[in-house]
Amino acid sequence: MDPSTAYTQLLARMREIDLLGSTAGLLGWDQETGMPAPNAEHRGNQLALLSGMIHEKFTAPETGALIDQALTDPSLGAEPDGDKAVNLREWKRDYEHAKRLPQDLVEEFSRVSSQAQVAWVEARAKKDFKVFLPWLEKVVGLTKRQADYLGFTDHPYDALLEEYEPGLTVKELDALFPPLLEKLADLSRRIQASKQKPDTSILKRPCPVDKQVKFCKLLAGHIGFDFTQGRLDVSAHPFSTGLGPADTRLTTRFDERDFSNAFFSTLHEAGHGIYDQGLPVGERYGTPRGAAVSLGIHESQSRLWENLVGRHPSTWKFFFPKLQHAFPGVFDDVTAEAFTFAANRSAPSFIRTESDEVTYNLHIGLRYGIEKDLMTGKLAPKDVPGAWNEAMRKFLGVVPPDDAVGCLQDVHWSHGSLGYFPTYTLGNLYSAQFFEAAKRDLGDLPAMFEKGKFGPLKKWLNEKIHTHGKRHRAGELCKLVTGKPLSTEPFLSYLEDKFGKLYSLADGG
Amino acid sequence: MDPSTAYTQLLARMREIDLLGSTAGLLGWDQETGMPAPNAEHRGNQLALLSGMIHEKFTAPETGALIDQALTDPSLGAEPDGDKAVNLREWKRDYEHAKRLPQDLVEEFSRVSSQAQVAWVEARAKKDFKVFLPWLEKVVGLTKRQADYLGFTDHPYDALLEEYEPGLTVKELDALFPPLLEKLADLSRRIQASKQKPDTSILKRPCPVDKQVKFCKLLAGHIGFDFTQGRLDVSAHPFSTGLGPADTRLTTRFDERDFSNAFFSTLHEAGHGIYDQGLPVGERYGTPRGAAVSLGIHESQSRLWENLVGRHPSTWKFFFPKLQHAFPGVFDDVTAEAFTFAANRSAPSFIRTESDEVTYNLHIGLRYGIEKDLMTGKLAPKDVPGAWNEAMRKFLGVVPPDDAVGCLQDVHWSHGSLGYFPTYTLGNLYSAQFFEAAKRDLGDLPAMFEKGKFGPLKKWLNEKIHTHGKRHRAGELCKLVTGKPLSTEPFLSYLEDKFGKLYSLADGG
Repeated sequence: MDPSTAYTQLLARMREIDLLGSTAGLLGWDQETGMPAPNAEHRGNQLALLSGMIHEKFTAPETGALIDQALTDPSLGAEPDGDKAVNLREWKRDYEHAKRLPQDLVEEFSRVSSQAQVAWVEARAKKDFKVFLPWLEKVVGLTKRQADYLGFTDHPYDALLEEYEPGLTVKELDALFPPLLEKLADLSRRIQASKQKPDTSILKRPCPVDKQVKFCKLLAGHIGFDFTQGRLDVSAHPFSTGLGPADTRLTTRFDERDFSNAFFSTLHEAGHGIYDQGLPVGERYGTPRGAAVSLGIHESQSRLWENLVGRHPSTWKFFFPKLQHAFPGVFDDVTAEAFTFAANRSAPSFIRTESDEVTYNLHIGLRYGIEKDLMTGKLAPKDVPGAWNEAMRKFLGVVPPDDAVGCLQDVHWSHGSLGYFPTYTLGNLYSAQFFEAAKRDLGDLPAMFEKGKFGPLKKWLNEKIHTHGKRHRAGELCKLVTGKPLSTEPFLSYLEDKFGKLYSLADGG
Repeated sequence: MDPSTAYTQLLARMREIDLLGSTAGLLGWDQETGMPAPNAEHRGNQLALLSGMIHEKFTAPETGALIDQALTDPSLGAEPDGDKAVNLREWKRDYEHAKRLPQDLVEEFSRVSSQAQVAWVEARAKKDFKVFLPWLEKVVGLTKRQADYLGFTDHPYDALLEEYEPGLTVKELDALFPPLLEKLADLSRRIQASKQKPDTSILKRPCPVDKQVKFCKLLAGHIGFDFTQGRLDVSAHPFSTGLGPADTRLTTRFDERDFSNAFFSTLHEAGHGIYDQGLPVGERYGTPRGAAVSLGIHESQSRLWENLVGRHPSTWKFFFPKLQHAFPGVFDDVTAEAFTFAANRSAPSFIRTESDEVTYNLHIGLRYGIEKDLMTGKLAPKDVPGAWNEAMRKFLGVVPPDDAVGCLQDVHWSHGSLGYFPTYTLGNLYSAQFFEAAKRDLGDLPAMFEKGKFGPLKKWLNEKIHTHGKRHRAGELCKLVTGKPLSTEPFLSYLEDKFGKLYSLADGG
């Protein structure tokens, strides 16, 4: 078979896999948004069948043979960033990764993590780490075996990072994290020492849920999420998912007494959604060339719209009058400035998902340290609660009263997703670095936000990031877009500037 | 392989097919209720992939071999109504049907019907039968070929009926229809001659859609639809679909100026849904033993709840005060009796789906006659409009002003679904015969309805009909439940009684 025919056959095969994948996506979306709960077992069987089919089709020897045959095309070298070359590079990588893991390990991992999740729910409810410990031990043991099969040069954790953020290494993170954490901890201390305090009680004023829904749609639509090719629904845990070339779905949750949560969570998910809607379609849909770069880059888009834009004082100069109008009588005595300050409140807290821009990455740094040490054996699973509380004291100055709001708070470990957390911090760092580059290219963005003009930024992101799909790896894309490799500097100076003004801090850092 | 092992393997195979089928069901439900329209092509590709997989798996020679092997089990004869025997009987039948049709015919039919639908939409919009005629000719030609491949003894239309209502024949329908149509036409004429006229303007009073949604849920829930294992959503064309053992979904449409349409359509779909929720689950789920008998029996359940119960004056003695309460101020000057009379208005009309209990089957009889004559060649497709208008004049006394509200009104022919229409009339006939049997077994049902007690009837239907799945064929089930073969008598006497009282008719018929 000539390389071109092999590529055509491969493309058809991969598109079929994508059709099954987006079908599984709908099954998952529906499960979270509307499926009657008693139907969960049947849904689980449907999902297991589809993921089995996808795995079987992707890891079939024919797939590998077609990839290898297509790669013999001599024209590939002439255009290493061309669609064909990009797709084959990514398929080859994924295929080899998938083949490296023996089937019995994959199955055991799936079994263990499903039981570990049940144990985790119980442990958290009982505030009893011991209930989860045997499962954490199993998960760590399996993850170590996984890293060995996947292979690594310097550090076993590198093998995990490669799964979630291709190209990222411990070496790189070890250079980024310590100074980042130190400076964030310092900024957080200075904020706590400030006499300026926002009035956060305004965030608890009751707002009817139906009006919140409407306002969330207004926000998401205004920043550029296209509702003719997307939806916003309700789920217990907000998420965003792409179900087709013209079908991107956001979810959020609503609480009458916590309206701003829905707003910022919607902006976050809309950021993911705008990325998804900006990915190439047509021939590229369903191939790596039409897919997102990495978790870190995806998170950078959500963080950018949620925080850099969404919590920007200028943005609320535009939206606050609309907010007052949308909730008649509720915010008449509040100023846009007071609202923005409240929405940017920073204070050490126990729960990562409820933390603010300054303290968020302290939570991540803590998890990164623990995960890395678990992988080398420097830390035993039984010692996680101690290490957790110790790091909380060190970075955030607070110690959780129990493990439910401590080391049992996140679902990731029970899922077996060690190596995932650092992508959140990468997202934050990328978001600030991209935003800085956008300001350099586009000029006074805040002045645009004040007038409700979010289109230029969205268009810039479309052109600089979204439209490339997986053409470049994350680090390379960062250099192309911003002219520099990833650095903590833009993020830190953004925070210094913003929180310095809000809390009237003296220059520090 | 011993027959028992063959059966076990077959069961696993069929359950997998069912998982794919219910997944396709979700894709379809989502397309009608929420998917962004521009995603239609992708959704079509997903559905085509799944239906191809299902077809391939079901018609694979292994399936046939397993069925034949399982059928050699000597114990099957001892329990011909047992689960195994029932499942094998139905699988064998469906497998043989599927195998009888050559692949090229199936593909051509699918291609033609997809294009025919486009032509039909255009023809209807332009009120121009000629646009549809070449496609109707193709559909009829292919349907004739289909009937030849499927095989029949007496009449080619029998082969089509066998697809939609197994066991039903032209002979049986030819005995039922003529006297039925004559008596219905007579009843309709007497109703038109009556001086009593309902005030139907009350059905056009504006009712806010959100309150209609709430009231529809109240209605469906009250008659026994279980919302913990189901939903009610909005779609352009109301339908009901079972997506899993604990997931039954109804849809309806809402119009502020036509509230009762949503109510009765919800009761209709809830009737389908209650049947679905009453089917066996557990081991039987996903097999014929856990599936509905036929389209006719399914329709009997929807018609029973929509008409026999839902339009019964006693039912509204219970619900009308709730209706008044749900729409404050709107119906204060209306009586339950006036509402019931309006909701039972009977008058000849052009459109089947908007017709009433008396005239509905006249529309079906007309279509049955035309379809049968198309199959024998007694009627040419080009002569359909003339035959249609002639039959409208004869049965309903009105002639449609154009073909859009005449022979182009229904989607069925463009779908290639000749043979489907009679199942609607069967549903009506069965519903009345079942209702009569239920009254015989349970006593004064209307007295129960007046008190809001719908549980005994639902339980009776569960036990007599739903729980049997496909154990019996429709005709056999009818005899078991009612003691008699299907007859027009219960339906006609039900209509005579009800409409005689409403319109103060002298005894007729």
